[in-house]
Amino acid sequence: MNYRLLIQYEGTDFHGWQIQDGLRTVQGELSRVLSLLDGRDVIVQGSGRTDAGVHAEGQVASVHLQREISPRKLCQAINGNLARDVRVLFVDIAPESFHARYSAVAKTYVYRLVQGPVMSPFWHRYAHQEERALNLELMSECARMFIGEHDWTAFSAAQADAGTRVRNLTRLDISHGWDGRGHCHLIEFTLTADGFLRYMVRSIIGTLLSVGRGEIGREVVAAALEQGDRNLAGPTAPAGGLTLTSVQYD
Amino acid sequence: MNYRLLIQYEGTDFHGWQIQDGLRTVQGELSRVLSLLDGRDVIVQGSGRTDAGVHAEGQVASVHLQREISPRKLCQAINGNLARDVRVLFVDIAPESFHARYSAVAKTYVYRLVQGPVMSPFWHRYAHQEERALNLELMSECARMFIGEHDWTAFSAAQADAGTRVRNLTRLDISHGWDGRGHCHLIEFTLTADGFLRYMVRSIIGTLLSVGRGEIGREVVAAALEQGDRNLAGPTAPAGGLTLTSVQYD
Repeated sequence: MNYRLLIQYEGTDFHGWQIQDGLRTVQGELSRVLSLLDGRDVIVQGSGRTDAGVHAEGQVASVHLQREISPRKLCQAINGNLARDVRVLFVDIAPESFHARYSAVAKTYVYRLVQGPVMSPFWHRYAHQEERALNLELMSECARMFIGEHDWTAFSAAQADAGTRVRNLTRLDISHGWDGRGHCHLIEFTLTADGFLRYMVRSIIGTLLSVGRGEIGREVVAAALEQGDRNLAGPTAPAGGLTLTSVQYD
Repeated sequence: MNYRLLIQYEGTDFHGWQIQDGLRTVQGELSRVLSLLDGRDVIVQGSGRTDAGVHAEGQVASVHLQREISPRKLCQAINGNLARDVRVLFVDIAPESFHARYSAVAKTYVYRLVQGPVMSPFWHRYAHQEERALNLELMSECARMFIGEHDWTAFSAAQADAGTRVRNLTRLDISHGWDGRGHCHLIEFTLTADGFLRYMVRSIIGTLLSVGRGEIGREVVAAALEQGDRNLAGPTAPAGGLTLTSVQYD
């Protein structure tokens, strides 16, 4: 039976999604529990890796189990064996051909930024702090340049996945306002693409922050996109501000 | 100089607000740092105590310092000496007569509840989980009975503060909906009064939960309010769901 899992995790205490010997990872924890339940070694497949420190509000994974168990009971059994920083929110039975990674058509990430002199205790795990004022108008203008199909070599890790570095970014919105708790100015960047290279979101955000601080202009961003030169892009923004919010399937 | 401080803390790793020998408390941490800065022992005065595990989004405190220092520098100096789970958001100079506790005219608390079978990793520190379905309509009806001036003996700790147990509850709203992260049904209780006795909010919430689960009816709530009998009230709800959101001054 092929099961589909909707998963949340707080990335702070994980070495990312991908299973690694001797390190606590989300895929490792879930595979350990599922192997126990299925009585044999199974590996849960995620829609994609998230790096150490990155959070997920709606990661999707799939796993084939020999044992037949109701989705509700499977959800309970998995959660009963996990620490509180990772939870399976929902389980259902998927078509045999469903694969969390290969079936995904798009993903959405949010990058959160607290803007101001003091970092709220309620955000330090989930957002990056920027003390300086930012030119949000110029950042929004530059954000529009990123939309579309591009070769993202300048905005990805040097050792990023083999194969094409062309991806189609369909959304890059910037919104801002007081957080629900009322004392904190929060900026949220929402990005959707048919796929993301390693460090791609954080590199785009780091570049937009350089623009917002007046360190680079829009012509540098244009050149980075055209020439694929990593030296033109801004630094990679810290992992803690990044959250995978949803994965889209047909 | 009399300084007024606006403070946030995540209560999880504190033994409450009030200073206690050998225990990590918010008042203890702030007083330690302010004593260092003022070169003598000072005690910061809060608007009121919060119990172990209770959070604050807008606690207010006041402190007299010998040293004259700009509010902005004082704010930076304090935060530079605190762990990340407590932050002074804002400092200003208050009139000599200002006292965070005696000058307060009202306080507002929020109690947060995640309703459903799975507790989100993003809420387990800040909300209590209720797996069962709740009769929100009946709870809202009962909530209205609490509004007004009452003797809250049935809804406070046996050893609660000496003196009158009469307080005026001016607001008790219940709102609910999906949380900002989209996969979690959140119920928020907002309460305002001219003062709260120890365990008063958590006892009101515990009673409303008993009502919502169908364990007690509105006549029991009415009797508890009238007779002041603690045995009629529901159990005290867990501390982690409670947050002091603001303190009101004239």
